[in-house]
Amino acid sequence: MALADAKAGIRNEAGIAAVLGILKQAFGERFQTGESFRAQHAHTTTYIPTQLPDGVLFAETSEDVQAVVKACAEHKVPIVAFGTGSSLEGQVNAPQGGISIDFSRMNRVLEVNAEDLDCTVEPGVTREQLNTYLRDTGLFFPIDPGANASIGGMTATRASGTNAVRYGTMKDNVLAVTVVAANGEEIRTARRARKSSAGYDLTRLFVGSEGTLGVLTSVTLRLQGIPQKIAGGACAFPTIHAACDAVIMTIQMGIPVARIELLDAVQLRACNAYSGLTYDEQPTLFLEFHGTEETVALQSEQFAEIAAECGGGEFLWTSNLEERNKLWKARHDAYWAARALAPELAALSTDVCVPISRLAECVAETQADIEEHGLLAPIVGHAGDGNFHVLVLFDDKTPEGIAVVEAFVARLNARALAMDGTCTGEHGVGQGKMSFLEQELGGAVDLMRQVKHALDPDAIFNPGKIFHGH
Amino acid sequence: MALADAKAGIRNEAGIAAVLGILKQAFGERFQTGESFRAQHAHTTTYIPTQLPDGVLFAETSEDVQAVVKACAEHKVPIVAFGTGSSLEGQVNAPQGGISIDFSRMNRVLEVNAEDLDCTVEPGVTREQLNTYLRDTGLFFPIDPGANASIGGMTATRASGTNAVRYGTMKDNVLAVTVVAANGEEIRTARRARKSSAGYDLTRLFVGSEGTLGVLTSVTLRLQGIPQKIAGGACAFPTIHAACDAVIMTIQMGIPVARIELLDAVQLRACNAYSGLTYDEQPTLFLEFHGTEETVALQSEQFAEIAAECGGGEFLWTSNLEERNKLWKARHDAYWAARALAPELAALSTDVCVPISRLAECVAETQADIEEHGLLAPIVGHAGDGNFHVLVLFDDKTPEGIAVVEAFVARLNARALAMDGTCTGEHGVGQGKMSFLEQELGGAVDLMRQVKHALDPDAIFNPGKIFHGH
Repeated sequence: MALADAKAGIRNEAGIAAVLGILKQAFGERFQTGESFRAQHAHTTTYIPTQLPDGVLFAETSEDVQAVVKACAEHKVPIVAFGTGSSLEGQVNAPQGGISIDFSRMNRVLEVNAEDLDCTVEPGVTREQLNTYLRDTGLFFPIDPGANASIGGMTATRASGTNAVRYGTMKDNVLAVTVVAANGEEIRTARRARKSSAGYDLTRLFVGSEGTLGVLTSVTLRLQGIPQKIAGGACAFPTIHAACDAVIMTIQMGIPVARIELLDAVQLRACNAYSGLTYDEQPTLFLEFHGTEETVALQSEQFAEIAAECGGGEFLWTSNLEERNKLWKARHDAYWAARALAPELAALSTDVCVPISRLAECVAETQADIEEHGLLAPIVGHAGDGNFHVLVLFDDKTPEGIAVVEAFVARLNARALAMDGTCTGEHGVGQGKMSFLEQELGGAVDLMRQVKHALDPDAIFNPGKIFHGH
Repeated sequence: MALADAKAGIRNEAGIAAVLGILKQAFGERFQTGESFRAQHAHTTTYIPTQLPDGVLFAETSEDVQAVVKACAEHKVPIVAFGTGSSLEGQVNAPQGGISIDFSRMNRVLEVNAEDLDCTVEPGVTREQLNTYLRDTGLFFPIDPGANASIGGMTATRASGTNAVRYGTMKDNVLAVTVVAANGEEIRTARRARKSSAGYDLTRLFVGSEGTLGVLTSVTLRLQGIPQKIAGGACAFPTIHAACDAVIMTIQMGIPVARIELLDAVQLRACNAYSGLTYDEQPTLFLEFHGTEETVALQSEQFAEIAAECGGGEFLWTSNLEERNKLWKARHDAYWAARALAPELAALSTDVCVPISRLAECVAETQADIEEHGLLAPIVGHAGDGNFHVLVLFDDKTPEGIAVVEAFVARLNARALAMDGTCTGEHGVGQGKMSFLEQELGGAVDLMRQVKHALDPDAIFNPGKIFHGH
């Protein structure tokens, strides 16, 4: 098959048949080609149609991964890495078929270096599994995208979430990766030092590359000490603008807030209904502070003053575990609460990110857009980063329903880009944001293509993602 | 000239002559070919021999840079970007000749967005110039590598310095760059959002690429609020191990120390002599805390307890500006103080970085090495990052003197690599660390070469740096 065909999204039937034969022989039961396995590994959480791989390899070691890459490289067959399948832009789809590598059995914590605040894990370790493992060490891994995603998947999509405002995103918390390159060899991108100026930053080139440059086989992560004390609470504001003003002042004053989440009135209504809560149905900030007894009290009081200055309601904060859990359970359940507003509809979770000075404007214009088009779409934001999600409830059974949500997403992205923002703060590009990436970065996408072509000349790594025409 | 010749380090005489003609005509007085200009732009702060470019272009706009890149690309002539010339591994040398682009006239602050805590500057802006400019905004740019380096140079070498332990390195503080690529077009790597998952992290690919992938024309930086209160002080310890134990406990407890610098006894002796101070000539930590009156007091007291627990002396901290300035002036003058120990000798400043659990061992073994070989070489470390510098005083007038320092550097790097460290925490690879980079990352360097070849197929951007054979 010509390479051009593979690039055009045409299946390489002969190559796929050859690889299926090789992998069946080499891996027996660990290689599955039944439709239920294949469908499960291409399931997307969006309206993007499912595109099945031709087989699923349950990898147990780096050597397994190397064997798959070598077979697929020889026969120019696509490889899609699969963690838990919680990605949101079609990243695990296999538009040209090929082999899905399932990492659920590569879930060992390989090494914890408590004094250095780092650990090395296999890609299939989930963040909850890791934090359970770490509990006795007094350390934790802070990045929390909501879903119990795998560390490999979080690395591949440059995930972040509620406490990125304090602890950064995956780019800030991955020290090194090992990756199987297109030649089937495993390379390591960096040593364990906390910083380095030793050549190109390959670590961060792989973080966020969505499996398009190689297959991760381990990830070395920075860890944090579990805070001595955690405090938090909710604070309602009369308008989105008032809430965002409080966010900006908090960040500008250098208060090291651990989470500062914005929920709009529609989301509050959904949370109240779903979780039996009684919050005012107004724009609301959910906050959390990490530190010592003294510092979390100081920070909470500082925020209360800021909130009052911005016209917010009383900030009732607490370090009581039960009350905090209730608050954050409501936040974590926001997705399900929103879906319960219209259980008969499908849901699309989409995200953009803008400079925080533009956040209020971007959210308010988006709310006006939602109202104008008669949509039901709660908004939840990682306000400290200028990142927000819209959960659009829509009818995925009709072309008209899908057209409505597609048009909304296009307007949302155009709005964010016009404010010097990005088409995705944390979900990645996948299949869903390719055209917006082009609008956002233009010529820089050509450089990405050059990098892709250099590291993956036959386009075997997760083809059809991030950009067209590789 | 064959491309292979350029890669082998052979000068492309015909191409250089053609470009000299083009640039003379286009830029007149702004293009200089006199030896003093050329020598000034290849001066290295090391014993690496100076290798002159053939001409120096004083760029004033991005269009100037694009014109130079287009001319050099057409004729396959090297381009070396020059900020202030304070790099430490021969980064500004021109081993194959070519054109040095001097950025001292591209020193405009283009934009400050106070609410978003970011700014965009031309590459020639120096960090001191930027902080002077920002003073009235209540913001500052924290990265402080010691020298008053240019932002472009700091970006290119992934610089960090004394307060990276709190604020990170250039990789954490550059939001986006514009860069002129090999086709002469300017691209922008990212928007101004604080985080993004939009495709490959080209920003961090350029940060630390030492001018080998393109020429920077602007840098968008994260800024910080100037702390309400700053406190600091010095604390002596009986051994390097005791001092490093205190560092590890400080980091593990999550105390957000802004600077935590380790000076060994030899460096203390040098500082006392040079700056007229009376510190105990013992391993000593210099610390600084940023926050409010309450938090810096809390953190200082917490550190005092840790120091006592580790066998350290009394930690006398102060927020008095004059006393703090005296302390940090001594730290900033450490280089000159060390040189004053033997003014007749040359000095090589070299750096490695190890996991902090290995820092004490690495420093102690290095001290033993220094003693065994009869060297004079004070040590200063950014202890919170596991990064330390050795300033080796040596005779650069004889091959024997140079051989001694080269052998020492080789042992130092082997030691750091054996401890899972890196051959450079912040100085970069340049010409001085190429062999150590290969030892450190092996096959990953091949991936770097592939990226280099993809983005710079004719090897015009700062050839002969980071790795051989591109």
